[in-house]
Amino acid sequence: MSSFGTIFKVTTYGESHCKSVGCIVDGVPPNMSLEEADIQPQLTRRRPGQSKLSTPRNEKDKVEIQSGTEFGKTLGTPIAMIVRNEDHRPKDYSETDVFPRPSHADYTYLKKYGVKASSGGGRSSARETIGRVAAGAIAEKFLAQSHGVEIVAFVSGVGTISIDRDPRSAEFQKLLSTITREQVDSFEPIRCPDSTVSQKMTDLVTQLRDSQDSIGGVVTCVIRNLPIGLGEPAFDKLEAMLAHAMLSIPATKGFEIGSGFEGTKIPGSQHNDPFYAKADGALGTTTNNSGGIQGGISNGEPVYFSVAFKPPATISQSQSTASYEGEDGVLKARGRHDPNVVPRAIPIVEAMAALVCADALLIQKSREYTFGQLS
Amino acid sequence: MSSFGTIFKVTTYGESHCKSVGCIVDGVPPNMSLEEADIQPQLTRRRPGQSKLSTPRNEKDKVEIQSGTEFGKTLGTPIAMIVRNEDHRPKDYSETDVFPRPSHADYTYLKKYGVKASSGGGRSSARETIGRVAAGAIAEKFLAQSHGVEIVAFVSGVGTISIDRDPRSAEFQKLLSTITREQVDSFEPIRCPDSTVSQKMTDLVTQLRDSQDSIGGVVTCVIRNLPIGLGEPAFDKLEAMLAHAMLSIPATKGFEIGSGFEGTKIPGSQHNDPFYAKADGALGTTTNNSGGIQGGISNGEPVYFSVAFKPPATISQSQSTASYEGEDGVLKARGRHDPNVVPRAIPIVEAMAALVCADALLIQKSREYTFGQLS
Amino acid sequence: MSSFGTIFKVTTYGESHCKSVGCIVDGVPPNMSLEEADIQPQLTRRRPGQSKLSTPRNEKDKVEIQSGTEFGKTLGTPIAMIVRNEDHRPKDYSETDVFPRPSHADYTYLKKYGVKASSGGGRSSARETIGRVAAGAIAEKFLAQSHGVEIVAFVSGVGTISIDRDPRSAEFQKLLSTITREQVDSFEPIRCPDSTVSQKMTDLVTQLRDSQDSIGGVVTCVIRNLPIGLGEPAFDKLEAMLAHAMLSIPATKGFEIGSGFEGTKIPGSQHNDPFYAKADGALGTTTNNSGGIQGGISNGEPVYFSVAFKPPATISQSQSTASYEGEDGVLKARGRHDPNVVPRAIPIVEAMAALVCADALLIQKSREYTFGQLS
Amino acid sequence: MSSFGTIFKVTTYGESHCKSVGCIVDGVPPNMSLEEADIQPQLTRRRPGQSKLSTPRNEKDKVEIQSGTEFGKTLGTPIAMIVRNEDHRPKDYSETDVFPRPSHADYTYLKKYGVKASSGGGRSSARETIGRVAAGAIAEKFLAQSHGVEIVAFVSGVGTISIDRDPRSAEFQKLLSTITREQVDSFEPIRCPDSTVSQKMTDLVTQLRDSQDSIGGVVTCVIRNLPIGLGEPAFDKLEAMLAHAMLSIPATKGFEIGSGFEGTKIPGSQHNDPFYAKADGALGTTTNNSGGIQGGISNGEPVYFSVAFKPPATISQSQSTASYEGEDGVLKARGRHDPNVVPRAIPIVEAMAALVCADALLIQKSREYTFGQLS
Repeated sequence: MSSFGTIFKVTTYGESHCKSVGCIVDGVPPNMSLEEADIQPQLTRRRPGQSKLSTPRNEKDKVEIQSGTEFGKTLGTPIAMIVRNEDHRPKDYSETDVFPRPSHADYTYLKKYGVKASSGGGRSSARETIGRVAAGAIAEKFLAQSHGVEIVAFVSGVGTISIDRDPRSAEFQKLLSTITREQVDSFEPIRCPDSTVSQKMTDLVTQLRDSQDSIGGVVTCVIRNLPIGLGEPAFDKLEAMLAHAMLSIPATKGFEIGSGFEGTKIPGSQHNDPFYAKADGALGTTTNNSGGIQGGISNGEPVYFSVAFKPPATISQSQSTASYEGEDGVLKARGRHDPNVVPRAIPIVEAMAALVCADALLIQKSREYTFGQLS
Repeated sequence: MSSFGTIFKVTTYGESHCKSVGCIVDGVPPNMSLEEADIQPQLTRRRPGQSKLSTPRNEKDKVEIQSGTEFGKTLGTPIAMIVRNEDHRPKDYSETDVFPRPSHADYTYLKKYGVKASSGGGRSSARETIGRVAAGAIAEKFLAQSHGVEIVAFVSGVGTISIDRDPRSAEFQKLLSTITREQVDSFEPIRCPDSTVSQKMTDLVTQLRDSQDSIGGVVTCVIRNLPIGLGEPAFDKLEAMLAHAMLSIPATKGFEIGSGFEGTKIPGSQHNDPFYAKADGALGTTTNNSGGIQGGISNGEPVYFSVAFKPPATISQSQSTASYEGEDGVLKARGRHDPNVVPRAIPIVEAMAALVCADALLIQKSREYTFGQLS
Repeated sequence: MSSFGTIFKVTTYGESHCKSVGCIVDGVPPNMSLEEADIQPQLTRRRPGQSKLSTPRNEKDKVEIQSGTEFGKTLGTPIAMIVRNEDHRPKDYSETDVFPRPSHADYTYLKKYGVKASSGGGRSSARETIGRVAAGAIAEKFLAQSHGVEIVAFVSGVGTISIDRDPRSAEFQKLLSTITREQVDSFEPIRCPDSTVSQKMTDLVTQLRDSQDSIGGVVTCVIRNLPIGLGEPAFDKLEAMLAHAMLSIPATKGFEIGSGFEGTKIPGSQHNDPFYAKADGALGTTTNNSGGIQGGISNGEPVYFSVAFKPPATISQSQSTASYEGEDGVLKARGRHDPNVVPRAIPIVEAMAALVCADALLIQKSREYTFGQLS
Repeated sequence: MSSFGTIFKVTTYGESHCKSVGCIVDGVPPNMSLEEADIQPQLTRRRPGQSKLSTPRNEKDKVEIQSGTEFGKTLGTPIAMIVRNEDHRPKDYSETDVFPRPSHADYTYLKKYGVKASSGGGRSSARETIGRVAAGAIAEKFLAQSHGVEIVAFVSGVGTISIDRDPRSAEFQKLLSTITREQVDSFEPIRCPDSTVSQKMTDLVTQLRDSQDSIGGVVTCVIRNLPIGLGEPAFDKLEAMLAHAMLSIPATKGFEIGSGFEGTKIPGSQHNDPFYAKADGALGTTTNNSGGIQGGISNGEPVYFSVAFKPPATISQSQSTASYEGEDGVLKARGRHDPNVVPRAIPIVEAMAALVCADALLIQKSREYTFGQLS
């Protein structure tokens, strides 16, 4: 459905052509300073039209807080946020739309809801993610304020071009330990923090745009300073919640935590992360194949994961397919389209990660307070 | 927490050394024939000790239905099932256990709960999955009875040895369309339905057992005959629920739906699945890079996905690590251990897939009945 | 928290002094005609300032649908609705507010959230109910369209003045079977459908207003034409969900289903409702002490219940109490206040009843479709 | 469904004629001492056959903890508990049962589930409450250990005989402040803590038993030492959760918090609870018409409420009614039955109250830890 989370909970609404998109965030801890300026930057980072590689449509996406704060402080009550749609007149496509777009949600939405909506795939529109990003910005601020948590995502792959994501690579682990959002954004337009690789990716995307095609990619995300103990066995393990969150983002096809699929190829004697004593007395691990999670519970090491995004289904070239009525035909190209969306997916991945962690943190805190008080 | 699902909902309990493990399955449709014989086969398939490659411990794992059926029919009320633990005396490890096992859940459970349990990682024990498999067997029967749904999982990779999982491979797609559980089980002990690859995998596992090491692998699963329309945008997309379910299985590190990570490398013009008219009038797709899901909603094509399992953390060789107290030391080897768990993971993957689909089906049915009745 | 329901689910937001109040309604069946004109009437019915007996503040409370409909039809996606607050500037009461208002939520909100909000009791404001009423109007329309369900609430008691609510009274049962909203509203301002009793209630409220005091009352509600089979044992019995819903309305102190507290005094031989065959072959009951529910499940008879509302805590006379700092003092009177709120509570009671029934209906329908299909 | 609670969550199972009844309790804080001896007393208090006034059936109802504890301490993992049914052979009533029992759940269960179960009303059986009482005993222990919370219920009314429950009665408020379970149980068999009233109740029940009839009653419950701040606006106000919990108990017809229905008759100037400073600096109220809750949030005063129970539907005399087939007839008397169940309902009311409070406490604690830490 349209809600995510148990205590820190977001509910989103909105399609492409309705009046506004937005969300209600329930369970935000009270007494935290919060204004629209805390939320807008991530919304701006996900906006299209930021570079010559992405779609030229210029959306403003200005967030307006409706409730839940007074004098710049959260009240502990639900925070509603809305972002107006610039063009909110629905188009009556029911007559003229002949072809469901291949690998789009037009057909499945029609079969699920029995309605042919103006926006075709309805909630599968990228605008649905605005509510997530707004909510995630609040979660992020809470995590940063309470525990210094840092969440940074970046592009690690586009098509066949990729940085080395081997969990045993010292360089990769160093990147995870140090990368900042400022660094990521300095690699515009592709947001891959490696000059050489980034340039190759840009070239590839340009080439696909010129051939009226599209290409997917991989976003890698790291969460640093997350407290030990987050994640709920058995079903709501931290990696399970992250996987749920990531695969709920439009166009995602895969999720890896820590060593991921590569980890299936490493013998246990090398894959196991040995313990060592950290300065603060807690135990750390000398390697991090686990990706910061053991038994579904955060262990204090950086949590990192990667998310696969398929190539955008909307392409500028014509496609042979069948109509809603089942007749073979050609879906003609319409306009210019974004050949690669992974750079814009970065704030969405960060937002969903923050929502998972904020909820896991509050759930765990409900348990911790009792330690040592019961007999 | 320990519950999964909204309408078709399972709640599990149990650790390694308690009296029993099991579950309560709520929301099972009434009037379905159900007896223990429907459930036992999958429990038996997940038992260790079935071959010379797996751990010799012989568990009986006999399921006992406690409630929710009469005269072999479901009542619509919750079905409780228990499986007794053979050895349920907890060991007092609190004094003698010096080292948290690397890449095990001993340390994180201790930090999360403040308790050093007999079974170390508590609910991270593989025995926790018994309740899932029992519940999944009921979900499977419901899906099969109501819609002829077939769910088949198999081993597609062990270490670096793998069958070809390229979504564009005709052979792979044919395998997905035809494979049966009987075929899978005929490739004992490794359950990879390819004689040559299976033999190589067996050799690799034997070699790692002999070197007191372990290795991970990949399980691929296909769901056939799933009705169109299942999955709930925005957050509970069908692939998001599957990802959640799979990453909640112990030792999992990754999830791919359809083309997965490979799909990020395929241009949109090739990745898009064109539509065609099927005999029954519905639209099918000529390729299935989408993995049977578009916009988070099943489209009538086979749903397939792969799950990465890390190498078992428990190995027979000694490991340099630190004690709970932070002192460096060597964790000595103890006994013999399962060098590879993916064949046993197959019924668990099938069970979780069935639980996701049964719940999605019931939620969707609540919506469909109103079609055409409202004005 | 701020969400209610499982499949048909509402999430509300908003306080007295924020920009807007409203809600997101998820799970609304698709393809139902819906416009703002379907929702506004109930919002207007709950507005203050409608008569000389209620508070003179004139709110407009105009609802704006933000999403989830196109061309006057529901899409099956979440429906967001907002109602702007006329005066949304928060007041900085943190310095000047000395006294928590007795029997208000000022003190408990401060202790719970650690924040002294402009509106004192924050979400305990009556404006929070706007989102409920808007959501309930959609639920009502769905119930009416799909099953002809009718929900009518009315004032049955004010202070010590009451109509006869004995479940054995033929007159009372006839009222429940026939009363309409039009009839209820014709008894303005008190909305008690009995001329004599209504006049006495009006006199009492006038008298209390003149003495700067307030008085509570009882709202009775009937749900007709509800299908048999709604309500989920064991914890989500239909009456349990109704009780939850009603006691979540501000100022409520009690709930009775069917015979209620009076039913504790009637011997079983008289209280039991004998069955008889109805024209359509279903069984009806000749009496309805059960209030249309047996074993937590609707039985096809009218469901009726009553809800107790305490006297409004805000009164115009001075009150001896203690300050936030614990010093004794007198809270002076401020302005004129509504001496009785039960007439305005009617659409809120109806809305919450509709939300409970719509959700119960969808949950039950997910089960029914399988009847006779499993073996 | 069969689960209740968000963080401290119970899921129950079991009917009259299955192998066992019981529950899984998830979210129990770790490191609390817990053994079967903590749970058995409340199960024993709810057993029938304890006096000459109740049904002679002798159940043993011995609880067995299956999981979640080791060496007498909770692990933080789910605690499963089972109680075996003495007679668990289902009877095949499908042929011989002609009449649905009036005001029982036989008919509604049949219509809801399409199955005629051995136990007729299936989960409406009183044995379903065993799981609740077992779970509630754990919740109670947690509340007592962490905050010294005391929960005591007693019979306040049987038929027309009642103690004075006027919220303004000093005697009643004193009773609420001091009553203990030991005192309640000393008034066997009726558990009404007033010798004179108790005797009258006993006489009435005896008389109804002799006339093969039954009678209902009222249970009043007080919760003392509950921390300030529990309860979640807007929908999960503390009184809303209590109402939900109480109306989910079989045979309940009404719920009142604090002044309840009587409170509708008291002018606001008398009903408002003035504040005063308590010794510990917190504010108390000089009266307690609010019943310890303001704005849905506990205020530190005793929380008290009453629950109405209808007369048992199973009576020993014959009843005119209709058969399942719709034919008029007489349902003959069978055996002897409990003419009044309210004394046995006491541990059930206490259990449900404890479950509500434990969950509300954990949810609130997740919020409190952040106070003063955010900026």
